[in-house]
Amino acid sequence: MKNTFGTNISLTIFGESHGAGIGAVLDGIAAGVPLDLEALDLAMEKRRARGDGLSTGRVEPDRVKFLSGVVEGRTTGTPIAILIENTNTRSGDYKKTQDLLRPGHADYTAWAKYEGWQDARGGGHFSGRITAAAVAAGEICRQILEGMGITLSSHIARVAGLEDAPLSGEESLLKSQLEALNRGSGFALVDPDRAPDMMEAIREESRQGDSVGGILETAAVGLPAGVGEPFFDSLESVLAHLAFSIPAVKGIEFGAGFALADMTGSQANDPFAWAEDRLVTTTNHNGGVNGGIANGMPLVFRTVVKPTPSIYKPQQTVDYPHHTAATLQIQGRHDPCILARAAVVQTAMTAFGLLDMITARYGTLCHTHGLPGRETPWNMD
Amino acid sequence: MKNTFGTNISLTIFGESHGAGIGAVLDGIAAGVPLDLEALDLAMEKRRARGDGLSTGRVEPDRVKFLSGVVEGRTTGTPIAILIENTNTRSGDYKKTQDLLRPGHADYTAWAKYEGWQDARGGGHFSGRITAAAVAAGEICRQILEGMGITLSSHIARVAGLEDAPLSGEESLLKSQLEALNRGSGFALVDPDRAPDMMEAIREESRQGDSVGGILETAAVGLPAGVGEPFFDSLESVLAHLAFSIPAVKGIEFGAGFALADMTGSQANDPFAWAEDRLVTTTNHNGGVNGGIANGMPLVFRTVVKPTPSIYKPQQTVDYPHHTAATLQIQGRHDPCILARAAVVQTAMTAFGLLDMITARYGTLCHTHGLPGRETPWNMD
Amino acid sequence: MKNTFGTNISLTIFGESHGAGIGAVLDGIAAGVPLDLEALDLAMEKRRARGDGLSTGRVEPDRVKFLSGVVEGRTTGTPIAILIENTNTRSGDYKKTQDLLRPGHADYTAWAKYEGWQDARGGGHFSGRITAAAVAAGEICRQILEGMGITLSSHIARVAGLEDAPLSGEESLLKSQLEALNRGSGFALVDPDRAPDMMEAIREESRQGDSVGGILETAAVGLPAGVGEPFFDSLESVLAHLAFSIPAVKGIEFGAGFALADMTGSQANDPFAWAEDRLVTTTNHNGGVNGGIANGMPLVFRTVVKPTPSIYKPQQTVDYPHHTAATLQIQGRHDPCILARAAVVQTAMTAFGLLDMITARYGTLCHTHGLPGRETPWNMD
Amino acid sequence: MKNTFGTNISLTIFGESHGAGIGAVLDGIAAGVPLDLEALDLAMEKRRARGDGLSTGRVEPDRVKFLSGVVEGRTTGTPIAILIENTNTRSGDYKKTQDLLRPGHADYTAWAKYEGWQDARGGGHFSGRITAAAVAAGEICRQILEGMGITLSSHIARVAGLEDAPLSGEESLLKSQLEALNRGSGFALVDPDRAPDMMEAIREESRQGDSVGGILETAAVGLPAGVGEPFFDSLESVLAHLAFSIPAVKGIEFGAGFALADMTGSQANDPFAWAEDRLVTTTNHNGGVNGGIANGMPLVFRTVVKPTPSIYKPQQTVDYPHHTAATLQIQGRHDPCILARAAVVQTAMTAFGLLDMITARYGTLCHTHGLPGRETPWNMD
Repeated sequence: MKNTFGTNISLTIFGESHGAGIGAVLDGIAAGVPLDLEALDLAMEKRRARGDGLSTGRVEPDRVKFLSGVVEGRTTGTPIAILIENTNTRSGDYKKTQDLLRPGHADYTAWAKYEGWQDARGGGHFSGRITAAAVAAGEICRQILEGMGITLSSHIARVAGLEDAPLSGEESLLKSQLEALNRGSGFALVDPDRAPDMMEAIREESRQGDSVGGILETAAVGLPAGVGEPFFDSLESVLAHLAFSIPAVKGIEFGAGFALADMTGSQANDPFAWAEDRLVTTTNHNGGVNGGIANGMPLVFRTVVKPTPSIYKPQQTVDYPHHTAATLQIQGRHDPCILARAAVVQTAMTAFGLLDMITARYGTLCHTHGLPGRETPWNMD
Repeated sequence: MKNTFGTNISLTIFGESHGAGIGAVLDGIAAGVPLDLEALDLAMEKRRARGDGLSTGRVEPDRVKFLSGVVEGRTTGTPIAILIENTNTRSGDYKKTQDLLRPGHADYTAWAKYEGWQDARGGGHFSGRITAAAVAAGEICRQILEGMGITLSSHIARVAGLEDAPLSGEESLLKSQLEALNRGSGFALVDPDRAPDMMEAIREESRQGDSVGGILETAAVGLPAGVGEPFFDSLESVLAHLAFSIPAVKGIEFGAGFALADMTGSQANDPFAWAEDRLVTTTNHNGGVNGGIANGMPLVFRTVVKPTPSIYKPQQTVDYPHHTAATLQIQGRHDPCILARAAVVQTAMTAFGLLDMITARYGTLCHTHGLPGRETPWNMD
Repeated sequence: MKNTFGTNISLTIFGESHGAGIGAVLDGIAAGVPLDLEALDLAMEKRRARGDGLSTGRVEPDRVKFLSGVVEGRTTGTPIAILIENTNTRSGDYKKTQDLLRPGHADYTAWAKYEGWQDARGGGHFSGRITAAAVAAGEICRQILEGMGITLSSHIARVAGLEDAPLSGEESLLKSQLEALNRGSGFALVDPDRAPDMMEAIREESRQGDSVGGILETAAVGLPAGVGEPFFDSLESVLAHLAFSIPAVKGIEFGAGFALADMTGSQANDPFAWAEDRLVTTTNHNGGVNGGIANGMPLVFRTVVKPTPSIYKPQQTVDYPHHTAATLQIQGRHDPCILARAAVVQTAMTAFGLLDMITARYGTLCHTHGLPGRETPWNMD
Repeated sequence: MKNTFGTNISLTIFGESHGAGIGAVLDGIAAGVPLDLEALDLAMEKRRARGDGLSTGRVEPDRVKFLSGVVEGRTTGTPIAILIENTNTRSGDYKKTQDLLRPGHADYTAWAKYEGWQDARGGGHFSGRITAAAVAAGEICRQILEGMGITLSSHIARVAGLEDAPLSGEESLLKSQLEALNRGSGFALVDPDRAPDMMEAIREESRQGDSVGGILETAAVGLPAGVGEPFFDSLESVLAHLAFSIPAVKGIEFGAGFALADMTGSQANDPFAWAEDRLVTTTNHNGGVNGGIANGMPLVFRTVVKPTPSIYKPQQTVDYPHHTAATLQIQGRHDPCILARAAVVQTAMTAFGLLDMITARYGTLCHTHGLPGRETPWNMD
């Protein structure tokens, strides 16, 4: 199912970096959901390049146009088609070096798969740009989740060797952190005071013609216990599937993640306890998921984002059609670090995945009518 | 799609630990594939408990019975239904503690999801036992891949703080290592001499009533460049989806994985070069995948397996139906470490995922007719 | 997705006529549904051959064995695996004529598709026998629908040129008819007094070495308006997809069906009216479906079932492997008419399709908690 | 999967009659397919309204805009996003009568499903207009099939009580007929001389303020034997699923169809014979499909298209929000008969379904490399 994902709701992605536009079709959303267009603009703004030395100089407005499925700010229940036009394309930058495979990029694999007929301009379908449509679709899902009492967001946990402050293990504090991240800047940090140092570290690598990687962390509070579909459609499976769709993500870990390798069972197990009338665990090494199903504790996972492969330093590669060795000096406009822009993409993909899983259990109508025992804040009259 | 996965070939899993049996339906395999039943038995044997102090005392023959889809050792093209009967069930062990939620287990989430009607005996559908059927189905896929010239296997990269020797970066040597792992013992190591120390470390934790985690590494050689389906069905997405279906897996990383967080682009990018008439990369930090598509280099990924949650040390928990705090002293038969048994599961799931992706590109008939430019070793007359 | 169907619940079918057994995996059913095993036996009995001159002499008990997903008569929420063992196979009957393609059968297409490796014994995967597993799975769905206040059944509308009494256009009367059909004989008629004449007409053709076709009609009362998913997963699309999976079905029509070809809009349109507080249409030419969505009126559709291709009269055909012309004199045991046995299959497939569509809207939990405003008759405490 | 269909290739539909536009995403097509844009325009022209008294006065250019997936007239291998802008919308026509449910339409079911939030203007997502995007996508599939040596088309077999000349049972003649239909007028007839009488019969009903129904017949020549996926994804199941997605289709029959109800096995069975080196059947009552798999004979099926529900005669109905009885006098612009426009839609949907089934067997690469033993006419250098 190549460019479509989801069972109960589905998302179809299309577009190339230098084509007419990029877009998405989000299907299965109930009718009557009121969209918060201001929050949508903010999400798009976070993913947008700003030409500030941290992201590519290709600056575009990324205005979301609804081709269908939304009338007077409410969903109609039919497919929501989203189009974001490409307005600032300089394909000439690529022509000069188009025969030289860029290391770390999909140039060669696109050639192998599409046998020379790929749209290679600006990375084509492999460009990070096509995540813009996913952000728009996922932000709609995030708003529906918020209406159900579920809050989620992402932050840059580590970049260029520098760490953000940790997410809180205390649920109400964590919720405040996530809300602040959603309202906050695109350079998403729990502790925004750490931004200047991180940005300077990125700019320093950029000045060297190089790029940096890092770690994104996503958390969600308020997931009802019982969501998730083992054997195959465990929460972890579905969220990992979506996370690896984000270009440059090369790893994912839930809860304590790879640190579990060196723990014993007595260290790793999360003891159960009653907190008033609610069941909790006193630690959260499992990241809110047991047996592939949400246990009601905060969902927490991290992904590693590799350093942007487009760097200005000369690189050894080959001229593919002419079958020779070559040195590549990349032209074009590139981000020295994509973590800031990828954070909102990860939130969006996660929102989509969670809403799909919730819809399996509670049906499409829960988008507007809410979850059992919880009210939605929407006026549906 | 809960317990069914795959697009071009599909796998459906069923069964509970203490029910009549566990099984799988593997669909979409071409007709005429000759099965190597000896290799199938060996794979099943690796996953099987041995009652040797490293795995649970619940020892069962795990004999694979083909209910359909195989006649005289060849596939018929119709669904291959596999049944493995449960023969050694002691549900009594669980009855004593069935109201006490086991930390780290799916007890609570099953309760939340199934509202008290779950089959809780022996972990029910959440038992690692149901991976036996996945091993049988995946081993058939692995044999088909081998027939196409693709070799894959897994090893215990780290357990109880001890490391195996690394997989080779040199392709022909790596292939030999993978073949040796496939032929070798269930305690899958590149360097089998390290087994005694590892086993002793596991037994030591076991004597403490505790359990250990570790890291599994899987590699594949011979994948044709061009396999994989971005945006959503990237190789990484599909393999991660399957890996997280394996109980206890909490993280996955491809190539250099989480180490990429602290690398720069010039360190992380894999330079292209010609090796005779073939395109290669001189490093493999991307683990054989660029843009979600195989680049022809070895596929390499690692997963973290958490320590078995079933430990004999007393644990703080709750009596769920009686709504009280409780101390749990687990009964039953449990593995102090599941990495050895999980390794062959990971190979099987990976084989299934790779065959699905290859089938998308080359069609069902490639299972018997082979890939373009490669011969299959099978006599189809 | 070859042998698996469904989005919110799914059904996987496996088995061959002369293999170990045939079966199904029904997935996505909520936990806690109490199964009516007596009603299940009755459904199986209706599909079973009776050796009475109307159906094949291959008489088997067709006992349903639950391999998983059911404990103490209640569903557990995990995949329900059903196995029906094959006990009465006489493959020898087929060996004599196995090189001669049977006209109207799948012999040649199986050869073309499976390249000679098909399981040809008794029709293999193409045997009507594999519908037994679908009946068991569909009957579980029908019971859940009944618990929600939805009644459905099928009757032999026409066979051997003779017509059954029509289903009533009046809803409460129709409901009684459907309930009587569900309780009644496998030779499903609205007017059972017409059975002797129909049976005699079938036996007469059978004595000539020939077979007969006919028409099956299925109806459902109590479907909530709003169920169905256009564009592609309209109620008609999903039910037709399932109906054509039944061997020998070659056509389907909803409501007035093919008669609509010669009607005008003013004749065909169903006028709306209020019946007390409920919206109804005063005619039902659309068979309860507008725009692919249930309108709350009775769902009504008919399928045509071709005459059984296995006849005893000599037929012109070819010896396929020897590439010669041949005359075929069929051996083996065959039904002169399969409508009676196919009726319960059609009910089962329809029940599965409807439950899938309902689950999309109301979520998995509606299986046990019922539809909004309707109570389920089940005690879930 | 609501608005997405297909396994190996997939089609996603979006749009409303009076929104920004309607569109489709066709995914899974191989890279390098050269599109015949003239043939595409002709297909679009056939579906387009002409304001000629036979179709609605809403005349729009229906220009196909490729948002992605096509560069310089060749496919790139990534999703082909198609947009057709809505340019001539007069929503005012609907406002006057928007509370009155139109009999035979989806007004009520949309209300029931979307709880009042549907886009009701011009039928919204239920408008026949959204089939325009399906025609564009399906025409691309038809061209690929043609490149593989498979010819298909549809004609108006019956309308307003008048019959077209029959499709030939002789394969080469049938192929010529289908090619002529593809080249010919939108009022698709095997015998175009019958058009004036049919058109006059339609106009006569139109003058009465009424509409007419009819029968569409589709045939395909050149399908390789062995295509189709039983149990569930039989050719008949997939093609029926797609046919019922076309608004107004209420029935489908393959081969002899409903006439099989009154035939005996000896009449219905298609005898096999050798025609030179090829296997054929001497009759084609099964319409080219046995056991759900193509047998290499022409695929033939018919659908019934109900008379357009939008008629100008006054009709009894209800004012839904005000809960009263009402008489409806429809405004707006409507077709007295949609068969001519629906014929090309049926061809398009069939082409999509067949290409999906063929791709399962031969892989994506067959789109450009052709079927075994057949050349494609395309220059891929």
